[in-house]
Amino acid sequence: MSKITPQDFHNLASERLPFAQIMGLQLQSIDAGGVWMRAVYSEKFLRPGGTIAGPVMMGLADAAVYALVLSRIGPVELAVTTSLNINFLRKPLPGDILARATPLKFGKRLVVGDVALYSAEQISMSEPESADPVAHATATYSIPPA
Amino acid sequence: MSKITPQDFHNLASERLPFAQIMGLQLQSIDAGGVWMRAVYSEKFLRPGGTIAGPVMMGLADAAVYALVLSRIGPVELAVTTSLNINFLRKPLPGDILARATPLKFGKRLVVGDVALYSAEQISMSEPESADPVAHATATYSIPPA
Amino acid sequence: MSKITPQDFHNLASERLPFAQIMGLQLQSIDAGGVWMRAVYSEKFLRPGGTIAGPVMMGLADAAVYALVLSRIGPVELAVTTSLNINFLRKPLPGDILARATPLKFGKRLVVGDVALYSAEQISMSEPESADPVAHATATYSIPPA
Amino acid sequence: MSKITPQDFHNLASERLPFAQIMGLQLQSIDAGGVWMRAVYSEKFLRPGGTIAGPVMMGLADAAVYALVLSRIGPVELAVTTSLNINFLRKPLPGDILARATPLKFGKRLVVGDVALYSAEQISMSEPESADPVAHATATYSIPPA
Repeated sequence: MSKITPQDFHNLASERLPFAQIMGLQLQSIDAGGVWMRAVYSEKFLRPGGTIAGPVMMGLADAAVYALVLSRIGPVELAVTTSLNINFLRKPLPGDILARATPLKFGKRLVVGDVALYSAEQISMSEPESADPVAHATATYSIPPA
Repeated sequence: MSKITPQDFHNLASERLPFAQIMGLQLQSIDAGGVWMRAVYSEKFLRPGGTIAGPVMMGLADAAVYALVLSRIGPVELAVTTSLNINFLRKPLPGDILARATPLKFGKRLVVGDVALYSAEQISMSEPESADPVAHATATYSIPPA
Repeated sequence: MSKITPQDFHNLASERLPFAQIMGLQLQSIDAGGVWMRAVYSEKFLRPGGTIAGPVMMGLADAAVYALVLSRIGPVELAVTTSLNINFLRKPLPGDILARATPLKFGKRLVVGDVALYSAEQISMSEPESADPVAHATATYSIPPA
Repeated sequence: MSKITPQDFHNLASERLPFAQIMGLQLQSIDAGGVWMRAVYSEKFLRPGGTIAGPVMMGLADAAVYALVLSRIGPVELAVTTSLNINFLRKPLPGDILARATPLKFGKRLVVGDVALYSAEQISMSEPESADPVAHATATYSIPPA
């Protein structure tokens, strides 16, 4: 069972993570397998080519793994990213982006998350396999000693 | 000799890259060895722990390599990031971040850039070796066919 | 339908990739979703801690994506790795390692593959979801112009 | 001052890391700034295209950071790689490869190393800046609690 709710994440982001608000981040759901996070589109996401700027997708991937971590260990705000690797795969549509983050490893010191990012209108959260991701990332978080 | 000026980058960012403005990005200088890009601090960069949110540093690293690419090939806006890897090394101070981007490879199809990020108050652009980086990234850009 | 057979890969490795033989690589199967590659254990894989040396897993991941690429484009030997990122997740058992490589993107110029690596005795190739991976990698190959 | 000598590393590799011997690894030198590691060429390194197989370079990069770690913390064999990212930049010559590993961060729990790889005949260890690297890697090691 998750140790935070989407509302908890919303409150944390509202109060402590202004950049999450700028990116329009919304934690959609937490389930046994992982989390879904959305970046709600705005025109400020655009880059030349009519597509979404890379930093929006990197920020979404990073935040999705942050939420995944907090869902398992509780609201330990000082969990921090130690590394992130992202491959940009396809041109996203100018619209919402959805990220599915799942754990590759949950250690005591390090958590490694896998994130697939999709153009929201191309994908159903209940059938992610049916769409091609626009980007794929892995991110490692370091958990502070208890 | 650079094929763009800092002013050209400023104009591009103003008109076509709203996210660069949100991140307070300023191309500081272009020289034979690479470029310096600054993210001008604002409180919206903060994350829990009194430090800078990771997406700001990822966006800065990405943009610094974008500027490096444009400095060599001219204003080819459709050069796009294909991958980015970042290691977060030390807690940045709540202040400006400076990125030094240098080329690892300039191919016809792919450019690989190396980026070291510093807390601006800890470093002199003329002596980057004297400070420890807060993060280090590599990013690959794909160059569209001419 | 695959453009190479496991036997084709075996012949290529035997004749042109001596390192693949040193790593005991065997292409197990090619299906619509990806490929399975095995590194057949030998004591020379060991590192301190009674576990498998990282280079064996990196080489296996790289070769699995190479086989994935060749399965789609045919025996284009000059497809080359442009980047590889690997996370080591759990201590592998001293035994065979199995890699499952699937495509994240098949472009004309770049192919990005996702690879999950498992201790062979912990996993069934027909139910990979049932085991935890010992490592996870992504690798990008550049395809030479036709 | 280094906590191991090149001879210590040679002994460790001879006794406990057979794969290092297969790759012809020799720790060349340890200095205040980092280490130099060599992979002594043999024909088994070749891959199609008359160049060096990627796993040789990945193994060399990984081992160079391992030696860097041991040079600072002593012969703690159970330091393990948690992640490695490599960009292949240029076609190496069929000959020895030299790796220069330097620290990006030396933390109590995590060490991040930067590695530039060169074709040995193109480079002088006293003037690495004068040659273009054939590959560039970063690797993170986890240090076991004392």
